[in-house]
Amino acid sequence: MIDHQRTFVILGHAASITPDFTLNDLPGSAGRMDILARCITTSFCLSHGIRKDVAVYLILRDQLTLRFDGATVKRLNPDERSTGALIKHAIESAQRLNIADQAEEIESTPGVYVARRGLRVLLEFFAKTNILCHVLDEHGTDIRSAPVQQPVAFVLSDHQNFSPDEELLLKECTKVSLGPVVLHADHCISVVHNELDRRSLHS
Amino acid sequence: MIDHQRTFVILGHAASITPDFTLNDLPGSAGRMDILARCITTSFCLSHGIRKDVAVYLILRDQLTLRFDGATVKRLNPDERSTGALIKHAIESAQRLNIADQAEEIESTPGVYVARRGLRVLLEFFAKTNILCHVLDEHGTDIRSAPVQQPVAFVLSDHQNFSPDEELLLKECTKVSLGPVVLHADHCISVVHNELDRRSLHS
Repeated sequence: MIDHQRTFVILGHAASITPDFTLNDLPGSAGRMDILARCITTSFCLSHGIRKDVAVYLILRDQLTLRFDGATVKRLNPDERSTGALIKHAIESAQRLNIADQAEEIESTPGVYVARRGLRVLLEFFAKTNILCHVLDEHGTDIRSAPVQQPVAFVLSDHQNFSPDEELLLKECTKVSLGPVVLHADHCISVVHNELDRRSLHS
Repeated sequence: MIDHQRTFVILGHAASITPDFTLNDLPGSAGRMDILARCITTSFCLSHGIRKDVAVYLILRDQLTLRFDGATVKRLNPDERSTGALIKHAIESAQRLNIADQAEEIESTPGVYVARRGLRVLLEFFAKTNILCHVLDEHGTDIRSAPVQQPVAFVLSDHQNFSPDEELLLKECTKVSLGPVVLHADHCISVVHNELDRRSLHS
């Protein structure tokens, strides 16, 4: 088993949690699922291969958590549509989950898992496993000088800001800044990876 | 008129130059058009707005040049499919171009232009207008210490390496490195933007 050195968590506030959306309209009826798909591919895809020790969690409306494991994920391509299909399949699989059991997790396709839980449970897992959690904040410490120790998690939001409830849950996270311009979540992931790659930390 | 401070050129070696591809299969029948679409959105899209002084050129099989002008481009959204539709529309419009006239350029949708020309003509334009051309190369100068002066152009390739003919045309370009890991072209654009944003250069 490979330990995940870098984890990205993306909160999808508008994302569909039922599989009745079309892959032809990821931004619209699927609730900005295009952003989430790009965050997955940017987290994992290298020019020639997959970053095996990366994990990505998509949290959809704080109700479903989709987990992508770089060590075992299959059928992951760099384009949005095929990644949207993996997400859709995971949401479909969630219908088989016991509605009252937050601990249950199903593998929907190789290396992709789904559970009925939200941000609080994930942050408890990070705390238990000593994964230090970061959020991006323009007033935070510049990532180039921030002491980032792996394993590390970065929590990002889709096109919406964190909700007050999320901000409360995330208040202990280390705040880091990437630069003077506010970027899309997937572009932020490229910049974070680049900084950690340069430090010759495992990825 | 806004001068373009940052220009990205992406060479699409496998890209379709006829509009008979489906937006449902940008990676396949369209010839890795998904990469080119992501390069466009990554070049232009900020969290809240468009980088107005960016220009992007897609060169398809060294036969068609599509030009996207950040100052005037419309209908540009961050997702791949709608950007693929802008590209497809430009390729359709190219059929109205005089086949022997490299100078002719048509506006296919607001801020998107197409012409029947390739890399050589574009590099001649950069030379005439004093735009210094860069290529990404792992053995180049680290971009963090490279003296990048705007206006500047970066030439990137899709999933294939530069051809020998392209390498010859690009041999005078400044070589810069982004880090120790070889990235997809769109991820490279995020890293380049971040470095230039940090220098407080206009974008």
